[in-house]
Amino acid sequence: MAIDLIAFDADDTLWHNETIFVTAQQKFKELLAKYHTEEWIDRKLYETEARNLQHFGYGVKGFTLSMIETAIELSEGRISGTEIRTVVELGKEMLKAPVALLDGVQQCIDELLKSYRLMVITKGDLFDQEAKFAKSGLGERFWRIEVVSDKNKITYERILKRYDLDPRQFLMVGDSLKSDILPVVALGAHAIHIPYQTTWIHERVAPGELEQKQYFRLEHIGLLPDFLAQFNRA
Amino acid sequence: MAIDLIAFDADDTLWHNETIFVTAQQKFKELLAKYHTEEWIDRKLYETEARNLQHFGYGVKGFTLSMIETAIELSEGRISGTEIRTVVELGKEMLKAPVALLDGVQQCIDELLKSYRLMVITKGDLFDQEAKFAKSGLGERFWRIEVVSDKNKITYERILKRYDLDPRQFLMVGDSLKSDILPVVALGAHAIHIPYQTTWIHERVAPGELEQKQYFRLEHIGLLPDFLAQFNRA
Repeated sequence: MAIDLIAFDADDTLWHNETIFVTAQQKFKELLAKYHTEEWIDRKLYETEARNLQHFGYGVKGFTLSMIETAIELSEGRISGTEIRTVVELGKEMLKAPVALLDGVQQCIDELLKSYRLMVITKGDLFDQEAKFAKSGLGERFWRIEVVSDKNKITYERILKRYDLDPRQFLMVGDSLKSDILPVVALGAHAIHIPYQTTWIHERVAPGELEQKQYFRLEHIGLLPDFLAQFNRA
Repeated sequence: MAIDLIAFDADDTLWHNETIFVTAQQKFKELLAKYHTEEWIDRKLYETEARNLQHFGYGVKGFTLSMIETAIELSEGRISGTEIRTVVELGKEMLKAPVALLDGVQQCIDELLKSYRLMVITKGDLFDQEAKFAKSGLGERFWRIEVVSDKNKITYERILKRYDLDPRQFLMVGDSLKSDILPVVALGAHAIHIPYQTTWIHERVAPGELEQKQYFRLEHIGLLPDFLAQFNRA
C-alpha cells in the first residue's frame, strides 16, 4: 500500500532546536560556575526538568522556570535577583531565536509536496511552535499542523482516526525514536528516523526497545524523496 | 437558521480560572509588601504581563515568569533566591489547583448534548488546558476541543472552515467580550456573553466597540438551554 500522507516532526527534524537549549544551558552553567561544576549543574537541571514535566510540559517557558528553580537550589538561595533576571533573559532569547532550517529541508518539502499530502505533528508549547512556524516560512506548505502536548501511541491513534487515515498509508519522519518512531510503528504505520546531532536525555531509549521494530533510518532529510520513490515502487 | 453547533469558552465560562490568578497575585503582593504598595505592584505586574505576551502567550507559566521579572524589578534586584522560590511555588500551586466547575455547568452541558453538537474553543497553554479538561471530567462530552494561542476573527474563520460550518448555525458562548463575542459576531455567527465575576484588564473592551453589535447576554449558564429552545423556535 503506497504512502499517502507524510507527517514530520518539527524540532530538530525541520529546524534546529536542541542547539538553542544547549547554548542557553551553557550560559546557565557559566552563571553558576562559582557554585558548582558543570557536570553537577547539568545533572541537577535535568532532575528538575524531569520532575517539573508533569506540571509544565515541554517547551522554553517550563525550561526557564526549571533553570530558575535549579539556580536557587544550587546556590542555596544565595543567587541574587539580578542573576535570576539573567536567567529570565536567557529564556526570552531562546523564544526570540531565529528559526534555522536544517540543510535540505526546503527542497525536500517542495519536492514531496508534488506527490504527497504533508502534515506536521509536533510536541511542545502551542504558542512557541506557532511562532516558529511563522518564522520558518514553511507553514503554508503543510495540509495540517498538529501541536500536541505529548507524542505517544494514543496521540497518533487519535490523529489517524480524526483524519480517517489507514496506518499503512501513513509515514512519520522525525529525530526522536521515543516520540516519532516507536509509537508509530506500534500502530502498524511507517516511520523514518533521521537522527539529529544531539538528543536530549529525556528522548533517549534503551537499545532493547528497538529490537524487532520495523522502521527505516536515513542520515539526512535530503535523502527522503529518493527513498520514498523506491519505497512506493516496491 | 437553527443553531447546529455550540462552542464554549473554558476558563471562567465552564470553570473558575481568574480567581486562581487573583489569589496568586494577592500572595505575590504580600511577598513584595515591604517594597511597594499593592496598587503599584498590580500596575507593574500588568505592565510586565502585557509586554511579555508577545513572547510568552497566555497561561500560568508566562504569568509566573512575569511575576518573577516584576519582583526583581520592584525590589531593584534585592529580592532573595528564597523569595523567588516562593513565586515559582505560587505558579506550581496554580497549575495544581483543582478545577472547580461554575454552578450549573454540568447540568447545562448534559441538557444541551441531547440536541446539539458541543465543542470548546479555548485560548491558552495547550498543556495547562488539557490538564484542566482531564481534571474537569467534562472532556468526553465535547465533540472537539480546540486549544488556540489567541481568539480573533482569523482563529474563528479557520475553525468554521475546517469543520465546514455555516456561521449562522454556529453559536459561541463565553465570558470575554473581546475573545468570545466580538470576533464571532464579526463573522455573522451568534454569540452569547455570560459575564464572570471579574475580568482581567487585558480582556476588557471599550463600551464604544459594542455599539451596533448583535449578541445576547445571559446572567448565568443555567439559563442557556431555555434560551436556546426559544431562540430556535423563533
